[in-house]
Amino acid sequence: MKISKLGEFGLIEKVIAPEFRELVNKHLTGIGDDSAIIPISQHTSHLHTTDMLVENTHFLREKIAPYQLGFKSLSVNLSDIAAMGGKPLASYLSIGLPKDMEVEWMEEFMRGYKDLSEDEDVPLLGGDTTSSQAGIVINVGVTGEIDNQLIKKRSDARDGDIVCVTGDVGDSAGGLQVILDNLPQDQVSSKLLDQHLTPYPHVSEGIWLASQPAVRAMMDVSDGIGSDLQHILKASQLKGYVELEKVPMSLELREQAGIYQWNPLELAISGGEDYVLLLTVDPAGYEQLGRDFEAEFGRPLHAIGYLAAGEPGITYLKDNQEVKDLKEGYRHF
Amino acid sequence: MKISKLGEFGLIEKVIAPEFRELVNKHLTGIGDDSAIIPISQHTSHLHTTDMLVENTHFLREKIAPYQLGFKSLSVNLSDIAAMGGKPLASYLSIGLPKDMEVEWMEEFMRGYKDLSEDEDVPLLGGDTTSSQAGIVINVGVTGEIDNQLIKKRSDARDGDIVCVTGDVGDSAGGLQVILDNLPQDQVSSKLLDQHLTPYPHVSEGIWLASQPAVRAMMDVSDGIGSDLQHILKASQLKGYVELEKVPMSLELREQAGIYQWNPLELAISGGEDYVLLLTVDPAGYEQLGRDFEAEFGRPLHAIGYLAAGEPGITYLKDNQEVKDLKEGYRHF
Repeated sequence: MKISKLGEFGLIEKVIAPEFRELVNKHLTGIGDDSAIIPISQHTSHLHTTDMLVENTHFLREKIAPYQLGFKSLSVNLSDIAAMGGKPLASYLSIGLPKDMEVEWMEEFMRGYKDLSEDEDVPLLGGDTTSSQAGIVINVGVTGEIDNQLIKKRSDARDGDIVCVTGDVGDSAGGLQVILDNLPQDQVSSKLLDQHLTPYPHVSEGIWLASQPAVRAMMDVSDGIGSDLQHILKASQLKGYVELEKVPMSLELREQAGIYQWNPLELAISGGEDYVLLLTVDPAGYEQLGRDFEAEFGRPLHAIGYLAAGEPGITYLKDNQEVKDLKEGYRHF
Repeated sequence: MKISKLGEFGLIEKVIAPEFRELVNKHLTGIGDDSAIIPISQHTSHLHTTDMLVENTHFLREKIAPYQLGFKSLSVNLSDIAAMGGKPLASYLSIGLPKDMEVEWMEEFMRGYKDLSEDEDVPLLGGDTTSSQAGIVINVGVTGEIDNQLIKKRSDARDGDIVCVTGDVGDSAGGLQVILDNLPQDQVSSKLLDQHLTPYPHVSEGIWLASQPAVRAMMDVSDGIGSDLQHILKASQLKGYVELEKVPMSLELREQAGIYQWNPLELAISGGEDYVLLLTVDPAGYEQLGRDFEAEFGRPLHAIGYLAAGEPGITYLKDNQEVKDLKEGYRHF
């Protein structure tokens, strides 16, 4: 069977994970959350996450500036630490580069990587550099830290929880569309492009949310709500309802969608690479949490649905009526 | 300037590391040793290392079985933890694969990866899978643990130390030669091939040596003694002497070199990928250490030279006469 047939999640579930079930003992948490968890004391754990970006799969060299690529390579990993509520401690960068690339390209890449490192106070502690005959390949790992009692796992959701996101979704997918269709760059399309090329990870939001007892399951939106929420539902064995009219979308996305006849909801649900946080909240604490979040971050926490007992799976609602026919989340294979 | 002109070490020293000097505070140790060091308590530190293997730079798909590649991908990282004297705790695997590859290939890769994981009791805790239009790309990260007082850094060498290695060098380079020249496989060439394709990391040796007070600086031999010893010399600001007649080489390497007119010393000094440990030892404790090592591991610890005050750099000696004209260690760029 070809790997493309099995898909990314199939590969992990069928080929990679089963081999290691017995080796992962009860002290360690491995495959299945945004970051691995290694307890370092009674009170504290380290988190570790890693992501690979391959030219022509994740980016096109002529469509992303090296500064942006450096920024984004770190950002998507910080987002995985944020997804567990952790504070990033250090990063590791492996990069494979064609021999004929200019040193200036790498300097610009490092400038982007470092700007975000400084903003979030995360030093680069190591890595690997190598030549690559096969285009640019980047792998970043990030180690984070968290109080054991505050870790938010995908399996922590409960029946009745309210599903929330920490920001707009769909802009990144809109930005990708601008790139793929070679659309003109103006103020509106630039907003979408920025969200796609230099997404800012919700690290502060993740740390703050982890400290709130009303927050239960948490993860980041990398493949799109429609795909990512499924992971929480499967891990927690619950059914999810997403109320489409509540899904937050920017004015820019709506405007651009109007001009080019995109379906903005499809981009918002299935587009991915938003790197906002997706969380489930105890309904008893939701109202207070929403007010506190807004006071802390100056923008709303968006409730977009709720969980209920039942077979894992998402039902989309519009004005309380079920809506079928929304494409699945972006898959890398 | 092209990246190939700057080289791997130039890229790290000139473009990557300077950006981060100010962010790496005194509690963390970053670029410049085999692994990064993150203290987790007064007594203990975590170590982290990462290595990228790119098709056609580090391996040829038709010349290495997937089982071997899986084994080696983990092995080279465990070796970096061993180089600091650490005990590996967990690994992370990112892999980019062309869409048309067979699932069976990945199953075999994981079998090799898992066999070494089980031998060394290191669970795979996470990673990333993606498609790659650019051939096979692998990045492995390993987290290890060590007692703060036992960490062996490259900068710990002192004037007068004896330079040692924990095993034969040159076999791996000989194995690469067998592959590149399409030489026939027999018992002799197979020994060299095995050392190149499935090197076994000296983890037990590293942990044991770290606990010995006579051991000062330590690292692993990945680029060849001639290149790797330079790192210890620069970090410790010392001059090194390597006595060529003492460099341990297998009978198989000597035999194969005789048949095909290789210079075995050049392979032993400059070949690289041996993944034995290179260490410097307090001369006062050397004799006892050598006896204890042999009692523990059933084979000798090989003294191959010594350190002295002076400008960092290696002088090669044969029968106490200086020898010039040995090629530098393997460089990836």
